[in-house]
Amino acid sequence: MNLYAVIMAGGVGSRFWPHSRRAHPKQFLDVLGPSSLIQNTFARLQPLIEPERVFVVTHTDYVEKTREHLPAVPAENVLGEPVARNTAPCIALAAARIHALDPEAVLVVLPADHLIRNVAHFQEVLRAAVEEAAQGDVLVTIGIEPTHPETGYGYIQYDSTLRDGDDTLRAYAVQAFAEKPDLATAERFLDSGDFLWNSGMFIWRADAILRAIERHLPDVHAAFAAVEAAYAEDDAGDAAEAAVQRAYERAPKISIDYGVMEPAASEGAVRVVPGSFGWSDVGDWRAVYDLAEKDAAGNAAEGNVLLHNTSRSYARAHDGRLLALVGVHDIAVVDTGDAVLVCHLDATQQVKNIVDYLGSHGLDEHV
Amino acid sequence: MNLYAVIMAGGVGSRFWPHSRRAHPKQFLDVLGPSSLIQNTFARLQPLIEPERVFVVTHTDYVEKTREHLPAVPAENVLGEPVARNTAPCIALAAARIHALDPEAVLVVLPADHLIRNVAHFQEVLRAAVEEAAQGDVLVTIGIEPTHPETGYGYIQYDSTLRDGDDTLRAYAVQAFAEKPDLATAERFLDSGDFLWNSGMFIWRADAILRAIERHLPDVHAAFAAVEAAYAEDDAGDAAEAAVQRAYERAPKISIDYGVMEPAASEGAVRVVPGSFGWSDVGDWRAVYDLAEKDAAGNAAEGNVLLHNTSRSYARAHDGRLLALVGVHDIAVVDTGDAVLVCHLDATQQVKNIVDYLGSHGLDEHV
Repeated sequence: MNLYAVIMAGGVGSRFWPHSRRAHPKQFLDVLGPSSLIQNTFARLQPLIEPERVFVVTHTDYVEKTREHLPAVPAENVLGEPVARNTAPCIALAAARIHALDPEAVLVVLPADHLIRNVAHFQEVLRAAVEEAAQGDVLVTIGIEPTHPETGYGYIQYDSTLRDGDDTLRAYAVQAFAEKPDLATAERFLDSGDFLWNSGMFIWRADAILRAIERHLPDVHAAFAAVEAAYAEDDAGDAAEAAVQRAYERAPKISIDYGVMEPAASEGAVRVVPGSFGWSDVGDWRAVYDLAEKDAAGNAAEGNVLLHNTSRSYARAHDGRLLALVGVHDIAVVDTGDAVLVCHLDATQQVKNIVDYLGSHGLDEHV
Repeated sequence: MNLYAVIMAGGVGSRFWPHSRRAHPKQFLDVLGPSSLIQNTFARLQPLIEPERVFVVTHTDYVEKTREHLPAVPAENVLGEPVARNTAPCIALAAARIHALDPEAVLVVLPADHLIRNVAHFQEVLRAAVEEAAQGDVLVTIGIEPTHPETGYGYIQYDSTLRDGDDTLRAYAVQAFAEKPDLATAERFLDSGDFLWNSGMFIWRADAILRAIERHLPDVHAAFAAVEAAYAEDDAGDAAEAAVQRAYERAPKISIDYGVMEPAASEGAVRVVPGSFGWSDVGDWRAVYDLAEKDAAGNAAEGNVLLHNTSRSYARAHDGRLLALVGVHDIAVVDTGDAVLVCHLDATQQVKNIVDYLGSHGLDEHV
């Protein structure tokens, strides 16, 4: 099978400040171990997709850094977006590039910055999704079995009437996509058994997603029409680069979920394979704390850290600098070379306000 | 009058870690403004005592740093203790040195690291105490009018029957010294109106305190007997230095309060002048927070600090490094070059445990 991967690495991750920076966004962080999140994403694909068939879409500013993190991926497979336009243009670009190379391509589209604990099960789920997508015009996604009424994720409603217990390695018809719900709605979703978390992972033939974009997002299709032709003629030379530049000038800012998957689902063209492999999108320091190994007092610490009468806290020291926590609870402390964040673990979503403030006050050296 | 000052600068101030270090103890800190605490102590004496008559007793390790902080004080007036033996040996040393120079000397003995807000009133109180002490064999101390039932200070019980309202610029007979009380006892002390806080400031003739030490602390007197003679012969040369070394090898570790003032008080030989001049011994970061200027949310910040949804907190940034607090309350954060402390403001007394731990685990670079 002509299987390709598209790793979407467009994020900035301001909620991981001060560890994440404009010059060093989330996908390059090693918040959960020795490798960066994008390296982990790449490694998980290795048994299924050879490195020469892995493509990455990122901001042009991060193309070099992406190549450094993924030396096994051919340099020309790292595609730069001149400006971030959400996921629909990103996917249109990658699909055009790969379709120009291989009209029979099947694409596995994955965010660069997710955490997956049970990699073997993830790969099983992915194989089932690929099998479904390879058959034709259908758009396949992976849905995560919800473990609690999370309000931070979108949901996928699917036809679970055909489910036979835990035998989930197959695709089901998707009925609808739901935005991030309030708590009462999330509880209702969980109780119903008909909802999965929207993982943002997609599997489809390149020609299928290009047709779906043409049908549901004609503006995006129009913007990228010339890109595939340029790629076919030019093999990613100057003409192709100019076509990409023009496409991003024209392309609207829209997500693939809202622009394609929702309308396609209402037409019965979307399938979901449920998965349960310890997934998280690791959205902020709270998520890192939740995923980290903890001591008996519920503390997680990295580096040169001393804890005294401290519980349920996360501390990340910088190089040789000592970090001491005394008498505190439910606190995250992150020290980097030039900044220290002290944040309540219930307020980690507010860290982006600090980044916004720094940016809007010209304090760019810390952003 | 032959008035001299003795500044006792022997402290290490481990509760101010990481700002205080073995190499940089509390008296050299600028925790409350542009000058160090020892510089403030020296400056408060300037209208009363000329710099040539100011002496400082400190550990030999800190002699050079003390001279740097007090360039107006003659270098030979900074006396080094080879080992810390609490306040009685410290005072015996200074009294021997100054008595050798001037048998009529009257000494003002002050800790180096206290805060005083109302300097003019402090100087009035000090003048009254000096007047009392100059008359002869009496030992005079300054007592602070208590404002609340503080359990962190010792207390002085005095004969208040002669007091005439707020006209306090006179000396009263001291009946007893009391150790740091529990809260119930402190409340009883406060209600009685007969108790003052023990400030650790003393005023007496050099010959009077030397006689009192001979009477109440014969061990200390015996240890230092040779020191005054050596000073008189040698004017602080090698022979005097050797005598000091021998004295500290012999001297017991004992405070002047316990060793001299308590027994002298029971013999009716101690007087106290009450004062109310915004005094604090600035014992830890909580005390610094309490004394600092605060914004409407009760935060005190120094340096490059950003606060978001944060209240009642103290933040002290280091040089250009940014310190950001998000969603925290009642927290102290102190960043120095090589260490960061994050401490609940109710746990600041526990900071010394961190210093003890570092010391006992060979982590000396942070102590």
